[in-house]
Amino acid sequence: MLSTHPRPSDRLDEAVALVDSTFACEQCCRSCADARLTGDSDVDLTACVRTNLDSADVCATTGRVLSRQTRPDDAVLRAQLRACVAACVAACVAACDACADECEEHADEHEHSRVCMERCRVCMERCRECADACRALLEAMPRGAAD
Amino acid sequence: MLSTHPRPSDRLDEAVALVDSTFACEQCCRSCADARLTGDSDVDLTACVRTNLDSADVCATTGRVLSRQTRPDDAVLRAQLRACVAACVAACVAACDACADECEEHADEHEHSRVCMERCRVCMERCRECADACRALLEAMPRGAAD
Amino acid sequence: MLSTHPRPSDRLDEAVALVDSTFACEQCCRSCADARLTGDSDVDLTACVRTNLDSADVCATTGRVLSRQTRPDDAVLRAQLRACVAACVAACVAACDACADECEEHADEHEHSRVCMERCRVCMERCRECADACRALLEAMPRGAAD
Amino acid sequence: MLSTHPRPSDRLDEAVALVDSTFACEQCCRSCADARLTGDSDVDLTACVRTNLDSADVCATTGRVLSRQTRPDDAVLRAQLRACVAACVAACVAACDACADECEEHADEHEHSRVCMERCRVCMERCRECADACRALLEAMPRGAAD
Repeated sequence: MLSTHPRPSDRLDEAVALVDSTFACEQCCRSCADARLTGDSDVDLTACVRTNLDSADVCATTGRVLSRQTRPDDAVLRAQLRACVAACVAACVAACDACADECEEHADEHEHSRVCMERCRVCMERCRECADACRALLEAMPRGAAD
Repeated sequence: MLSTHPRPSDRLDEAVALVDSTFACEQCCRSCADARLTGDSDVDLTACVRTNLDSADVCATTGRVLSRQTRPDDAVLRAQLRACVAACVAACVAACDACADECEEHADEHEHSRVCMERCRVCMERCRECADACRALLEAMPRGAAD
Repeated sequence: MLSTHPRPSDRLDEAVALVDSTFACEQCCRSCADARLTGDSDVDLTACVRTNLDSADVCATTGRVLSRQTRPDDAVLRAQLRACVAACVAACVAACDACADECEEHADEHEHSRVCMERCRVCMERCRECADACRALLEAMPRGAAD
Repeated sequence: MLSTHPRPSDRLDEAVALVDSTFACEQCCRSCADARLTGDSDVDLTACVRTNLDSADVCATTGRVLSRQTRPDDAVLRAQLRACVAACVAACVAACDACADECEEHADEHEHSRVCMERCRVCMERCRECADACRALLEAMPRGAAD
């Protein structure tokens, strides 16, 4: 859809790739936060849920800013991309910690660990892909006066 | 991601399909509203922009409600699906009207019409797919007391 | 802000009141869901967190639809208001249940119960106010063909 | 509501003030973008609409991150506050430009100018207040490793 825009901004390819990444990451983080709520685990998952919800909201806004190709403001976009990197990295680290703690607690339950690791792996991958896509677009942008 | 949930709700297949539709429709409507802003057209596009923005916001919320599989509330989900159908249908109709008006105005400019129709066609398809996916999930749900 | 709009829609007073209610309810529900995460309670709070997050997202979208006064679509607005009533009522009921369960569990701890009831009371009031404001606007609107 | 949280984060006063500012700014920017759509002006308002929509979305996310008091991540919060400052400043500058251009175009129409300036003044004030509140919270936070 972005490619049919009457006045596409520069760096359209990076923008299209990133819009897809932000939507995938948002959905994954929101679903992951929800799955944590059902657990009967004794592990403290609050940091994981919290960073997941932050990352979902920040990714959603990054996708919206990028969906608008008209008259982009580079200072706003740069700051938003940096916020998105920070949120995705924090969610990735917290998911990794939570996964390790949960799997340790349930070390004897192979099926539990298999499902937990599968879900956490997907979530970490989406967060990392989104952070990488943000960094790729930041690299492709001209540097700002404040950089 | 939804399919790794520890306690998946019923109707998981319909939910997964609909989450994808809501994200595709949201992105399309937001991008379409933005593309309208750049036009130098004399056609009144306010209804189209407005319904696009409504549809984008309603689709985003539908996707979020569906991303949560834990303890779903059927009355909330049904009402949200109906709101999503109404918003997608309104955006589809307004996009169709705007496309017809714009293409009439630029009847001699084949390239303009080609791009306009291509963009509007994509937007109408995404809106219709999303409305259809909402209706499919509504059909698959038990009827509520108020229905 | 709404009142300076160049072409205000009908029912401006109800719309202004409702925008304030949706923002208050969204903030309250989001904060309430977060506060539940920190608890060391044995009470199952998943229904409360889930309905809080649904209500927050639905209220946010209702506020956005209402913030747009240009060319409103009555069918979309009506469906959105009904979704908002359903989400606010569900959150109110779940908050009430969670409060009763938590206070029963901590019956001996007066300070715990005082804080819990104070927070739950605020959340229930915001949800009820928002549902009432939605109903007031629905009443003030002409009935649709499908009603 | 934030003040009844069981484990309030530091800097609660700044957070409460900022949540109110983000909601006020979001509503104002969304309404302002909508009001621009109705205009029959020849002035190019696309930059104003676009920065308004960016600012509304970024403010909404800032308010959501701040509504969560549980286990805050300072790196995420700092980056989000900086994104919010950038978005609010851009919206404020664009609103100011658009107001000047519109009022120049309608220099003979005192009523038009009066309404336009009133609306733009409110929007600029909300944007500036929100940017100031973000900066106040940034000042109150410990400096990060990367600062």
